[in-house]
Amino acid sequence: MSFDSRQIADTQLISYLRQRRSSLLHVIDPFKVPIEQAVEKARALQRYGFAAVILASTDWENFEDTMNPYVDQVRAAASELTILLHFPPRHGHGMPMVSNADGLLYPFLLESNDPYFAWKSYTETAELRAKQPASGSGKQPGFLHLAALTFGEDKRSNDVMGIDPVEMSEQHLSHLSWGIQMLGLQGVYLYSRCSAVPNEACRYFRTRMRADQLLFASGGVRTAERALELFTAGADFVVFSGALECERWEPVLERLVSGCGGATGVTIPRQKAS
Amino acid sequence: MSFDSRQIADTQLISYLRQRRSSLLHVIDPFKVPIEQAVEKARALQRYGFAAVILASTDWENFEDTMNPYVDQVRAAASELTILLHFPPRHGHGMPMVSNADGLLYPFLLESNDPYFAWKSYTETAELRAKQPASGSGKQPGFLHLAALTFGEDKRSNDVMGIDPVEMSEQHLSHLSWGIQMLGLQGVYLYSRCSAVPNEACRYFRTRMRADQLLFASGGVRTAERALELFTAGADFVVFSGALECERWEPVLERLVSGCGGATGVTIPRQKAS
Repeated sequence: MSFDSRQIADTQLISYLRQRRSSLLHVIDPFKVPIEQAVEKARALQRYGFAAVILASTDWENFEDTMNPYVDQVRAAASELTILLHFPPRHGHGMPMVSNADGLLYPFLLESNDPYFAWKSYTETAELRAKQPASGSGKQPGFLHLAALTFGEDKRSNDVMGIDPVEMSEQHLSHLSWGIQMLGLQGVYLYSRCSAVPNEACRYFRTRMRADQLLFASGGVRTAERALELFTAGADFVVFSGALECERWEPVLERLVSGCGGATGVTIPRQKAS
Repeated sequence: MSFDSRQIADTQLISYLRQRRSSLLHVIDPFKVPIEQAVEKARALQRYGFAAVILASTDWENFEDTMNPYVDQVRAAASELTILLHFPPRHGHGMPMVSNADGLLYPFLLESNDPYFAWKSYTETAELRAKQPASGSGKQPGFLHLAALTFGEDKRSNDVMGIDPVEMSEQHLSHLSWGIQMLGLQGVYLYSRCSAVPNEACRYFRTRMRADQLLFASGGVRTAERALELFTAGADFVVFSGALECERWEPVLERLVSGCGGATGVTIPRQKAS
């Protein structure tokens, strides 16, 4: 893929997402959720008019062998659903990807003690892909450049990517905010594996980011009330994953969507606006 | 050049420079200084035991055609002198380079309003070089990753690279210092085109940087007294250029070197240490 077509794919992706602000998104972990269940969930997401499904995992193996058929089957079941990838890169391999996905949330892990995860993996990925162009149509997912920040204790993210949780001091948040502008990132992805993204973190970045930058909030979202808190705090996309990792996920999804007044164009309750 | 051999070349360069701390360096602008004069200067630098000569310019054209023979002739005249390149990249072209140089000071322009100059040019350069490997031996200059920061009004740097001069507030310096660690840069290059690098800027970064990171200070250095001020403030390398852009440059060079007690291993006067 040439530098120009990469830019076109990237531009298409961010334009699409900017038009679908105030949306719920769901994460499916392809290395945990059986494809039969993913297909059912994708159908349900499409019925509810979701802007996208995110396929994501910290733990991936045999990426292309697993992901190519997984994406194909999700696509076959829900052809109108945009499919986004969200995975960490690995030293020597760069960012894993498959060309049948629509987009890729590229994490710039500004809290990692290894600059590979802050930005160098991006260069490695470009270099590896320039040497070994993808087979097939040459189509590649567009990249969305996001600062990825984690909140609360998270041993797994520390082990795999050397990430410390965000320190909620004014000075440190101000470093992050400056860094996001300096790097020209297109938004921020806030995540908590074991606790919750503080509403004030959401509010902080929404206030400092340009209007055209996108804010994702994710982690422990299981109810519409919690999702609405994050939308109220300024999130453009509220992402839930574990909430549907149960046997009877349909009523959970129904309550989440109906409690938000729909999966996209969520209206923030007036009395909660801050 | 493979990813591994790039890392080896980079490691060799920084190891060499770490061993040659407390050194004067001279910049020659190959797009301004005739090669005959550069050859004379290179011979003089080698006689004085300079750690390196830097070939640098904001304004370059026909890079390889000019630089390949220029570097060859400097090398032929002063075969023991390490030759470093220091140029800005250009959109669509990446970083210009020639394989007969020993190293390249890669500027991460953290004050640019265009993230291309902050870091994206690095990815573009890697991508372009992966697609079109250099001809010849495959040898490439090692890269030294430096935050490049400018001081004082500088219309030219603003026009070409969208750079604002460093704002000397505690908060802003703290952003830069955080950014340098986050990106994993190997040092800082302080520069002033029209005025001077403040000694306190030098001191600030020396205090915040790790011991293995390198600090260059450059701009308007014309006397040994001024050079010693910058060494005293913590510079590992004090760089002069315009000082020798005159007809009788030999006595200027002699005074600079002898006033510092040598071109390398400069001893900071005890009474000046802060």
